[in-house]
Amino acid sequence: MKTRDRILLAGLRLFNEEGAATVSTNRVATELEISPGNLYYHFKSKLQIVEWLLRRFEDEMRPFASAPESVAALDDLWLALHLAFEKISEYRFVYRDADFLMREYPQLAPRLQRLTAAWLATLRRLYHGLVAQGVLRAAPDEIDLLALHTTFTMTCWFSYARLMPETLGPDNDSGRAAYHILTLLGPYLEDDSRQYLAYLRHKYLK
Amino acid sequence: MKTRDRILLAGLRLFNEEGAATVSTNRVATELEISPGNLYYHFKSKLQIVEWLLRRFEDEMRPFASAPESVAALDDLWLALHLAFEKISEYRFVYRDADFLMREYPQLAPRLQRLTAAWLATLRRLYHGLVAQGVLRAAPDEIDLLALHTTFTMTCWFSYARLMPETLGPDNDSGRAAYHILTLLGPYLEDDSRQYLAYLRHKYLK
Repeated sequence: MKTRDRILLAGLRLFNEEGAATVSTNRVATELEISPGNLYYHFKSKLQIVEWLLRRFEDEMRPFASAPESVAALDDLWLALHLAFEKISEYRFVYRDADFLMREYPQLAPRLQRLTAAWLATLRRLYHGLVAQGVLRAAPDEIDLLALHTTFTMTCWFSYARLMPETLGPDNDSGRAAYHILTLLGPYLEDDSRQYLAYLRHKYLK
Repeated sequence: MKTRDRILLAGLRLFNEEGAATVSTNRVATELEISPGNLYYHFKSKLQIVEWLLRRFEDEMRPFASAPESVAALDDLWLALHLAFEKISEYRFVYRDADFLMREYPQLAPRLQRLTAAWLATLRRLYHGLVAQGVLRAAPDEIDLLALHTTFTMTCWFSYARLMPETLGPDNDSGRAAYHILTLLGPYLEDDSRQYLAYLRHKYLK
């Protein structure tokens, strides 16, 4: 693997495990047993490492933008959300440390806000599609609310999970996170889809 | 004001404004123009300051525990949530910096989890009460979900708000945060209460 990619992977792992606020570029270099000068040759600052990781996160989340074209039923939605949560978990420092990142590097704020806005737009299209397919029954303003709740859950669920009493389940379970979003849709589901929700409830809640 | 209280107030303000991870006890002492030794006389470590602030937060959130006794309609609920969000905003470093706090001081994790568990229990009682009063129509498992969504929103809404495109509203608006929770209740409301929700929607969404 190229040094550049090794740096990004080590940076991601350390940011995730120890927090973006506390991990320095020197810490990353030490982890990889390379010199600070070698790291500096590839990345001039911690911000550059963060920016590249953000770019990869955005790239790997790109399939989610086309979910409205492929999601035609509740189990499609569950899968699309499950995959999205896997990525969000893989890059979990992004939202967990968002306050630090936006404070330390103000130029990242509009970028994170654009990503939120893009997810909101995707989810609106997706839910409108599910209404058209007869899966959901919801008015346009209810669709806006569901899209907002879903984005909120995508960005913050893993932070919340750590605050829950442990009996409520493991905090990095993407399947459970996706299920949580489906429960928000519960009251809006047409009858056929309720059965799938009941199946998932049985799976995730004892 | 006693030095001890001045230290707690300055600590709270600095933690809120600059982040609990970056503010040291020396920084607090400098801010108050007292010597590090004087601060040390009152608090032996940053952890002690954090613990006392957490205790105050828990104390000031105590009225929320009796909300189930006083909330009999949707506007009561909106008020109770509004007041809770005011407190959460006043101590906003607690949830925003929860990952740092629980990593740096593992003994705080069960304490924060107990608080979440207490809110969950309060909200379950509260929503059961609203069902009994004919405000909500929800099955016991739906009440559990609503209580979970509400606690999630109470702990994470202000973190999410910063990630939203600015056009969606100011990020520290406790009234809007409380309204957001009411929208979750929307599908479960009996007809009379829907009118109040429509009034709030008019107020918070253009």
